[in-house]
Amino acid sequence: MALITTQLQDNIGTITFNNPKHRNVLSSAAISEMIQAIAALQKGKMRVLILRAPKGSKVWSAGHDVHELPMPGRDPLAYNDPLVTILRSIQSLPIPVIAMLEGSVWGGACDLALSCDILIGCQSSSFCMTPAKIGVPYNVSGILHFINIMGVNFAKEMFFTAEPLSAEQAAKAGLLNHLVDVESLEDFTYEMAAKITRNSPLSIGVIKEQIRLLASAHPLSPLTFERIQGLRRTVYDSKDYGEGITAFLEKRTPVFTGE
Amino acid sequence: MALITTQLQDNIGTITFNNPKHRNVLSSAAISEMIQAIAALQKGKMRVLILRAPKGSKVWSAGHDVHELPMPGRDPLAYNDPLVTILRSIQSLPIPVIAMLEGSVWGGACDLALSCDILIGCQSSSFCMTPAKIGVPYNVSGILHFINIMGVNFAKEMFFTAEPLSAEQAAKAGLLNHLVDVESLEDFTYEMAAKITRNSPLSIGVIKEQIRLLASAHPLSPLTFERIQGLRRTVYDSKDYGEGITAFLEKRTPVFTGE
Amino acid sequence: MALITTQLQDNIGTITFNNPKHRNVLSSAAISEMIQAIAALQKGKMRVLILRAPKGSKVWSAGHDVHELPMPGRDPLAYNDPLVTILRSIQSLPIPVIAMLEGSVWGGACDLALSCDILIGCQSSSFCMTPAKIGVPYNVSGILHFINIMGVNFAKEMFFTAEPLSAEQAAKAGLLNHLVDVESLEDFTYEMAAKITRNSPLSIGVIKEQIRLLASAHPLSPLTFERIQGLRRTVYDSKDYGEGITAFLEKRTPVFTGE
Amino acid sequence: MALITTQLQDNIGTITFNNPKHRNVLSSAAISEMIQAIAALQKGKMRVLILRAPKGSKVWSAGHDVHELPMPGRDPLAYNDPLVTILRSIQSLPIPVIAMLEGSVWGGACDLALSCDILIGCQSSSFCMTPAKIGVPYNVSGILHFINIMGVNFAKEMFFTAEPLSAEQAAKAGLLNHLVDVESLEDFTYEMAAKITRNSPLSIGVIKEQIRLLASAHPLSPLTFERIQGLRRTVYDSKDYGEGITAFLEKRTPVFTGE
Amino acid sequence: MALITTQLQDNIGTITFNNPKHRNVLSSAAISEMIQAIAALQKGKMRVLILRAPKGSKVWSAGHDVHELPMPGRDPLAYNDPLVTILRSIQSLPIPVIAMLEGSVWGGACDLALSCDILIGCQSSSFCMTPAKIGVPYNVSGILHFINIMGVNFAKEMFFTAEPLSAEQAAKAGLLNHLVDVESLEDFTYEMAAKITRNSPLSIGVIKEQIRLLASAHPLSPLTFERIQGLRRTVYDSKDYGEGITAFLEKRTPVFTGE
Amino acid sequence: MALITTQLQDNIGTITFNNPKHRNVLSSAAISEMIQAIAALQKGKMRVLILRAPKGSKVWSAGHDVHELPMPGRDPLAYNDPLVTILRSIQSLPIPVIAMLEGSVWGGACDLALSCDILIGCQSSSFCMTPAKIGVPYNVSGILHFINIMGVNFAKEMFFTAEPLSAEQAAKAGLLNHLVDVESLEDFTYEMAAKITRNSPLSIGVIKEQIRLLASAHPLSPLTFERIQGLRRTVYDSKDYGEGITAFLEKRTPVFTGE
Ligand code: NI
Ligand code: NI
Ligand code: NI
Repeated sequence: MALITTQLQDNIGTITFNNPKHRNVLSSAAISEMIQAIAALQKGKMRVLILRAPKGSKVWSAGHDVHELPMPGRDPLAYNDPLVTILRSIQSLPIPVIAMLEGSVWGGACDLALSCDILIGCQSSSFCMTPAKIGVPYNVSGILHFINIMGVNFAKEMFFTAEPLSAEQAAKAGLLNHLVDVESLEDFTYEMAAKITRNSPLSIGVIKEQIRLLASAHPLSPLTFERIQGLRRTVYDSKDYGEGITAFLEKRTPVFTGE
Repeated sequence: MALITTQLQDNIGTITFNNPKHRNVLSSAAISEMIQAIAALQKGKMRVLILRAPKGSKVWSAGHDVHELPMPGRDPLAYNDPLVTILRSIQSLPIPVIAMLEGSVWGGACDLALSCDILIGCQSSSFCMTPAKIGVPYNVSGILHFINIMGVNFAKEMFFTAEPLSAEQAAKAGLLNHLVDVESLEDFTYEMAAKITRNSPLSIGVIKEQIRLLASAHPLSPLTFERIQGLRRTVYDSKDYGEGITAFLEKRTPVFTGE
Repeated sequence: MALITTQLQDNIGTITFNNPKHRNVLSSAAISEMIQAIAALQKGKMRVLILRAPKGSKVWSAGHDVHELPMPGRDPLAYNDPLVTILRSIQSLPIPVIAMLEGSVWGGACDLALSCDILIGCQSSSFCMTPAKIGVPYNVSGILHFINIMGVNFAKEMFFTAEPLSAEQAAKAGLLNHLVDVESLEDFTYEMAAKITRNSPLSIGVIKEQIRLLASAHPLSPLTFERIQGLRRTVYDSKDYGEGITAFLEKRTPVFTGE
Repeated sequence: MALITTQLQDNIGTITFNNPKHRNVLSSAAISEMIQAIAALQKGKMRVLILRAPKGSKVWSAGHDVHELPMPGRDPLAYNDPLVTILRSIQSLPIPVIAMLEGSVWGGACDLALSCDILIGCQSSSFCMTPAKIGVPYNVSGILHFINIMGVNFAKEMFFTAEPLSAEQAAKAGLLNHLVDVESLEDFTYEMAAKITRNSPLSIGVIKEQIRLLASAHPLSPLTFERIQGLRRTVYDSKDYGEGITAFLEKRTPVFTGE
Repeated sequence: MALITTQLQDNIGTITFNNPKHRNVLSSAAISEMIQAIAALQKGKMRVLILRAPKGSKVWSAGHDVHELPMPGRDPLAYNDPLVTILRSIQSLPIPVIAMLEGSVWGGACDLALSCDILIGCQSSSFCMTPAKIGVPYNVSGILHFINIMGVNFAKEMFFTAEPLSAEQAAKAGLLNHLVDVESLEDFTYEMAAKITRNSPLSIGVIKEQIRLLASAHPLSPLTFERIQGLRRTVYDSKDYGEGITAFLEKRTPVFTGE
Repeated sequence: MALITTQLQDNIGTITFNNPKHRNVLSSAAISEMIQAIAALQKGKMRVLILRAPKGSKVWSAGHDVHELPMPGRDPLAYNDPLVTILRSIQSLPIPVIAMLEGSVWGGACDLALSCDILIGCQSSSFCMTPAKIGVPYNVSGILHFINIMGVNFAKEMFFTAEPLSAEQAAKAGLLNHLVDVESLEDFTYEMAAKITRNSPLSIGVIKEQIRLLASAHPLSPLTFERIQGLRRTVYDSKDYGEGITAFLEKRTPVFTGE
């Protein structure tokens, strides 16, 4: 384990990103470590899990590893892709997961943070949803995570501008459960975690699962969904999608033509 | 009628909890009185209903009467249970119901308050969702009330920590329509009620019903629902559920093992 | 084109209400102009649309033209009515629409503003949802717009009291993405629009469409919906509905009897 | 009670149409008698209800009373209309209802028969679904009754041709549970009813209610439903709708232009 | 393994009931053996599974073991009950399951047969759905299996009369894919199975899963489902339910009072 | 126009396949002609459309052009693919479409026939659903067409065996509205069409659209649908999918390994 570190103490599990050189990017390697770590922690008596970056991080996580995005012609957010898989793992874990958010959060890492149950931020937290900058057609379940927490108008602004939300804005938009001073972030988070460990794990597990199902219960007819998939495919087949990835990797501004 | 008092003036109905000795607990007796009171008030020309505790109350309501929870093996939140029934009555009433919230609100009384249409609080209001403290598997429609008002992340914190939300936190989470000074709470509430009485009761009634149906329109497939019921049954069949009730009645901290 | 003016610059389209004498009312004539204007702008390279009133407006829009409401016996909010049609146009437009809100917003104009993707207000903005003042049974998809942005309790207060929400209240209720000083309103809005124009229009278009479908995905069974239509018909067949319209046109307070 | 007769024997209730002169038409008067009769029978110990015409009837029921259809501009199949109301009564009755079908069944009477739980026919039974002959935009819940029993392709043929289905065709399409000789129709029906009376009424009641809810569980989004209502309104506002009713009453062939 | 026997040949798995003394009853022991057998067969290269009774059986399976039904107060068809579990196993198996049906099929065994993908019967096949004879409130997902195969009116007759459907009636109601002579039953079934083994198992697996999900996609709102559970609970709490079980075990006719 | 011929007489449109050399395959060229032909016919006063092969055809249509299936890695049944597009066109056409079925019907042509409103066959009609022979993961909306007409068990047999259904079997399974002698097929079909032209086109149009929406109203949650897409992608990324196409084009039996 090199890209993350883990800890289990007093029934509180912690996974800490540990790849500052690559801005804690959610590469398939990192996600694979996270999935193994969660499985290992669950063998202990973990009753709550904290997901965090090391103290003092400027970047919580840079999100998706753009190098790993498929070339045009393939869905960049398919069901079995690593990022999409870890989001489901976090949401299906029968214990609460707390995102302790220090530093900036980018793209898929926003979705990871929103897939946690409770989000605690500090002044250095910021949140930037980047798919419109790269030309990615975000997927339905991912978009639903944002709507369920922020309401439709804040989610739209975040996606359409692809600009970072400051910690205050995130708090106002309802994204953060708590906005605390960076010095007290750790104490605040672990105290809340400790309280949770004293409650009934069975009751908590079933309530979390019910919320997961209710929040996802925005069902669409097969025709509607297939139309969405058709629209998304048009986008990931487009020149703009290729341009977006290339520009990102070449660290230049993309030029989108809508084709 | 001993556990509540009622009033009807200028088309404004009021039900006031009147059982301070037992912290305005929502016993089946109290709920039965409330249901009768609502029926009686509706025979008058009530156009809005206010639900409140007496001025100066420290506790708005203690919620569920834990003595009345069934022993392990039976669903503690079944469709015809008194608490679940009064929630439906409030939501189905074709006139607005305002919760005027002075003092602390516990467990099922939170659900009662959230089942009202408009929530007005003051500095002494606080809200504590206790099922995870007792080991109760909360039910789907109840959880949906919280999600619809607070969003998923605030609802999760409230349920998982089982800690009281202060009035400010409740306002920030969107639970309170208004947070006003305790001295002006009554005036503020009755003035809003008076405004409502002047509007079209037919228009209001149909809009309330539409909102009720839309807010409940998170449909689940039969298989999904039966799985939830199975998970909930595992919880109310568990040792922990028995321990939770016993500990509460013995006024000691429960020890949950997850079994 | 007399009731609105339009502009297209740097891929930013603007539609400005231009009928101050009639408080920018959403008459069928005005809406017809808007629909044509949108079609014309889309032939240019519009990547974002701003909907606004002229600088210094006291009234952003008075909403529905009450003169055009049908007499009792006909649904006042039917699928092909002009107001309902323009709401769908705005929501289905494959580019973001920003409501730049100076002045008061009334009735159907609130629904128009909420049908925009991003709402930016200033101190003079206010929002008043009037159907309960006139006796109109609002329609399901319209009510859903409010729930999706404000949550159920704020939406209920707005509809039941029919009182204006101040800019601060609107911001607190989550209706406004941003509340800025009136002097900086224009700059703030056009800067945000400019940022959007640089992002991938294909990605934005498909994300907007997904949000539209997810937000509308509160499906109801045929029986439930037909019951709602039955309830709504009872209202628009009622004496109160006629009284509401008449009183409004006679500029007097209506007297509602619930019949 | 003149338009129907009723009987209750051995826990078997019977309602017999008794208006041969008007071909047992489902006028509001007849339906009102039926609703009262059902209420009266339920006070007895009815465990099954049989709906029938007198022995030897050529016409089971002519269906909707076309004289009572509203003029253009009003929905001819609204929620509180008598026919729509009796359909719901039959479906919601917590005991099985058997349609004993001798003679021809027309329009709304087909819907009534299909709203029964078990359909037993004989050689003289025939079924004709007439709305396309008159120009009526049939309603969603009614159409769903046909789909649930016949599948979509048989339902479409029946509606589009408006031709009578013979007893054999009806049996083949799955509309009839049993096709028996006219002489044995009564015995067959009452023997089946007698068997049902010996089973658990509670078990039967809850199974019937579950089937009703499952069969209706084809939920549609608010937008979709409002679009349907818009389409239906276009039809009942049309010239063709007026022509259809007029031609029927004048006993001539209508000339439809699609306007 | 005593209650069933298993075989795997040419990629065709077979599970044969082997408990004629107890009429191949679906006791928890028998089901446990089936679940283990399926797991073992899947380790081989099984591409289709046949579920059958021994040649010449008079009873395919007697269904639920009534001795194992819980006493009043507990749901007799809960999510984790053995019968309900084996139904899900069969439906979720990623290969086709063929029910080869010789002899009579009772109660829960009907549900097992209908949970298979293809049903092949012979003249001795008959199908009797018994819950109304015992007083059991059947569960939602089980009822849905019947509706999806038979349509609502045949399902209702089967449940309400609790009379056996003959092979011909079952074929007419669409329950049987094929009705063949008893001598050719085995050859017919194994030939069809052999054809299936030559097709693409991946394609078949995903099509089966899609059909499972579509057939279950009759979603209900939380309120509706909780109401159903409330109704079902009233039934399994009733005197009649106890009477039904007792009478069955005492081999006498139950007397139901509706209480 | 070479691959089809069209005719419009007495308000009855006819599209006749005209490519016997390639067995009336549904190539993108043929479908493009069909879409243009439908548009042209609609400009006339077409009130019903008949889809047919020339008299005496052995093959009604061979279905999908396997040469046009994409290589592994791309969804072979995407929303904008020609076959999927023509299915939607037929279903959305506001007039009835009758499939007049002489000869064998293969793969996608089965879906085309089932997308018609009324199916009329003769002794030479047969229906073979081939995706499991080629290794294609059929799509959700397509599968739903089969379920809605045949019920789940007949649809499963058809897909899993990939064997032709004879005309009698198709009639028994409910796929055919009518099975008539080949000599009377044309007269029977055109007489039914003529009857339809005399009925109200507005009434028919809105009923067809309601049936389309109801039949599609089997909504799935985003997570469920994305899981299905993930499963389908695994299949069209597989070796077996490539083998299936190659074997078909090489006219040999495929060897599927499940990989
Ligand atoms: Ni929702
Ligand atoms: Ni259905
Ligand atoms: Ni269905």
